[in-house]
Amino acid sequence: MTAPCLTSALFTDLYQLTMMQGYFFNGLHTQEAVFDLYFRRLPFEGGYAVWAGLEPMLDTLEALRFSEDDLAYLGTLGQFRPEFLAALREWRFSGQIEAFAEGDVVFPHEPLLTVTAPLWEAQLIETMLLNTLNFQTLVATKAARCVLAARSSPHGGEVLEFGARRAQGPDGALSAARAAFVGGASATSHVEAGQRFGIPVSGTHAHAWVESFPDELAAFRAYAKLYPDSTVLLLDTIDTLRSGLPNAITVARELRAAGHELRGIRLDSGDLAYLSRTARAELDAAGFPDVKIIASNDLSEAVIAGIISEGGRIDVYGVGTQLATAGGPGGGALGGVYKLASLGGVPRMKLTGDPGKASLPGVKHVWRASEQNGKQAGEQLQWDVLTLGGAPQAAQRVSDPVNPLRSAPIPAGLNWQPARQTVMQGGHRTAPARTLTDIQAFSARQLARVATETRRLLNPHIYRVSLAPDAAGLRQRVMEDLQAQHTK
Amino acid sequence: MTAPCLTSALFTDLYQLTMMQGYFFNGLHTQEAVFDLYFRRLPFEGGYAVWAGLEPMLDTLEALRFSEDDLAYLGTLGQFRPEFLAALREWRFSGQIEAFAEGDVVFPHEPLLTVTAPLWEAQLIETMLLNTLNFQTLVATKAARCVLAARSSPHGGEVLEFGARRAQGPDGALSAARAAFVGGASATSHVEAGQRFGIPVSGTHAHAWVESFPDELAAFRAYAKLYPDSTVLLLDTIDTLRSGLPNAITVARELRAAGHELRGIRLDSGDLAYLSRTARAELDAAGFPDVKIIASNDLSEAVIAGIISEGGRIDVYGVGTQLATAGGPGGGALGGVYKLASLGGVPRMKLTGDPGKASLPGVKHVWRASEQNGKQAGEQLQWDVLTLGGAPQAAQRVSDPVNPLRSAPIPAGLNWQPARQTVMQGGHRTAPARTLTDIQAFSARQLARVATETRRLLNPHIYRVSLAPDAAGLRQRVMEDLQAQHTK
Repeated sequence: MTAPCLTSALFTDLYQLTMMQGYFFNGLHTQEAVFDLYFRRLPFEGGYAVWAGLEPMLDTLEALRFSEDDLAYLGTLGQFRPEFLAALREWRFSGQIEAFAEGDVVFPHEPLLTVTAPLWEAQLIETMLLNTLNFQTLVATKAARCVLAARSSPHGGEVLEFGARRAQGPDGALSAARAAFVGGASATSHVEAGQRFGIPVSGTHAHAWVESFPDELAAFRAYAKLYPDSTVLLLDTIDTLRSGLPNAITVARELRAAGHELRGIRLDSGDLAYLSRTARAELDAAGFPDVKIIASNDLSEAVIAGIISEGGRIDVYGVGTQLATAGGPGGGALGGVYKLASLGGVPRMKLTGDPGKASLPGVKHVWRASEQNGKQAGEQLQWDVLTLGGAPQAAQRVSDPVNPLRSAPIPAGLNWQPARQTVMQGGHRTAPARTLTDIQAFSARQLARVATETRRLLNPHIYRVSLAPDAAGLRQRVMEDLQAQHTK
Repeated sequence: MTAPCLTSALFTDLYQLTMMQGYFFNGLHTQEAVFDLYFRRLPFEGGYAVWAGLEPMLDTLEALRFSEDDLAYLGTLGQFRPEFLAALREWRFSGQIEAFAEGDVVFPHEPLLTVTAPLWEAQLIETMLLNTLNFQTLVATKAARCVLAARSSPHGGEVLEFGARRAQGPDGALSAARAAFVGGASATSHVEAGQRFGIPVSGTHAHAWVESFPDELAAFRAYAKLYPDSTVLLLDTIDTLRSGLPNAITVARELRAAGHELRGIRLDSGDLAYLSRTARAELDAAGFPDVKIIASNDLSEAVIAGIISEGGRIDVYGVGTQLATAGGPGGGALGGVYKLASLGGVPRMKLTGDPGKASLPGVKHVWRASEQNGKQAGEQLQWDVLTLGGAPQAAQRVSDPVNPLRSAPIPAGLNWQPARQTVMQGGHRTAPARTLTDIQAFSARQLARVATETRRLLNPHIYRVSLAPDAAGLRQRVMEDLQAQHTK
């Protein structure tokens, strides 16, 4: 199961290839490089991100080769020499990858994935890693936010992804359906996504169905006749409360008389809080308390939370555009980056003109502490710390990854565990791909370990990610060496 | 050249298939249906959109089939009967499509594409049409806005697309590179996009290149040695003005001594207006007025316009995230829809609870008027009018598509032409696919025919799209008939 649409070694930026050729002719290409993938800012102004896209990425890396067509195309560009193209024919990814397990909760400035590989291997894959992991992490995070909002209702609620028509291109739809499932969506409307990833598929009918019959009641009856146990009726083709709802109740009665039950109704325009309360009351009064109310129409986590706060009675939220494109404040793109941390055993760093964009040199380990929290049930995630080796020690003073002036001591009694595992070794997976259902369940468990204050939709509590003294000290030394270069 | 990643007939929403089965068993599936594809609001709060994605879509439609794997998967869902699945095995798209030529400028409420086909054919393809055309139109429009901003400099300027790492999934990157080229981008960094679409590819080097050498000057020299005629040096790994620029000038001198010229420098952080003015002055003073300045770092049309207004001297704008994801106000997704207009020769309409979401019934023609405009050079686009037949007549009172109270008479002397052509007949293209270079050139010509007031980035003049009396009258009659249904 490689990432859909991502099977070509040319899925990369041109400069990766021009640099690879440069490393090759300068004898640098086989030096061992260490690159970290991380982001600097959480999406959606939220408190966490859900890490997604790793499993298909590993499959892609295992299979990645330059085809003869690829080499011929590169030959036409006039920049690549025959010896280099011949070497690309044998190119394989042979490196090691440490990463958070797919579905885990992750935070800014910590290496989510670290590649250790010959320089020219690590360089080529930058573009595809960032493309896949940025997007799927973004959508999984959006889905988790929508699911959290939906479940905040005293009556419960679930999320269905159906953004294919507004998604950013064909794979925007396919990858989004996968990532939304990782983040907790129950199903997708996208049939090919169901086929490729084994996600449950779900759907109702469109306005065109109603318009294809002499009247709405005839259209509802025809649909119910064909799907007596799975019918969900769309109510707003003419008028939701004056036409759609009474016709749906008529069909619900006819289905029951024939030994079936109407599955649900769908609201797709108008005031969803008001319409859902009214429809719930009328359905209950008519003896149909189990008919589900599905709603759609430009939903987002904020709109879902608003509907619930006004007493809306929606059971299933169909989230389209906002989920498939991960829209809204702080959405649209995750700014993940991939930076050289070490080459040939020597720590490397870029400074740039923006202090917040300086990278962290050296080979780092990510440690995560959990602790029983008196206020909440279960063991809670407390703190992530980057070190150059072993676990952080109590009383060590650790600092903020961007501002060294912000520091705090490590308290005693925390339970430190490595946050990442080796997922690839010698270019091969260390374990078979996990199923999407396992990943979804793991993600839900990890999210439940995050403090409710950090899971809040707006103005969340900031989860702590810190640098241990060894990592902070190394950064200081490398920075001073670099600055000395241009003041010599 | 089918759309990348869009080759499966299961690239659709489940409800399209459940409806298709319903049409099939109700004997409606072969009725002639007419569906219009249109959007209601322009993206980016702008004055126009650039229509893109049509050519690959036509290729996909010509080739679309259900595979045996597809049918087997549908069989597992428990909702589809063997007779229907057997019929899908023979399913082909056999319809007719009228559409604006790819690259044309288009506006809200006009049918950009009209499908006339047996109902079950027209229904299946809704999801893939909207997915492809919404996204590519969105990105082409964003690119056109960025190019317009870049060209507003007295020194000129061009746009390079390089958003692959932040794009929405693999195809988000590939489709975006194609659509950005339609909208006027000069090149892409994405090698596979270059290979698939024949777009020029372009690139520089990354910070990792500089970090892979003992110092920045050594890294610059190694790159220039390998690419003596195409080197663009990235200046901000250590410090743009104190390290990168003097080292680049050193290398430019060494290249010239060897009979070559440095191609350019790239700025990727800091204040781009200030840095580009300073770099331009220092390069000029050192005798390198032809070294190009390329800039990147979260650029958008607004940032480009701001840099130019402050006297920035950038020749090439590398636009990544904002272009590939079509971000910014009013961006992220184009809300194109696909609505039944006629079935079996009878006009159809949906009302819904939102007046702005009602559809336009009947088979419509789109007419576009151009006129010599005294204020500006060339013939300008003036007005688009939807009729049920021939061209609008002078003195006819035409009305706004949403609010019938807003109306105006057609002046005499306008030159009316059909805005769309038949691009597919009997399921086959009526003409071979146009090249992307032709589409880009056509788009630039059409955009030049739009009034500068309408092309403005902010608060543009609204281009007129109107309903002729026949189309408006039909809508009124169908609406009254529908409303009578639930007041009976």
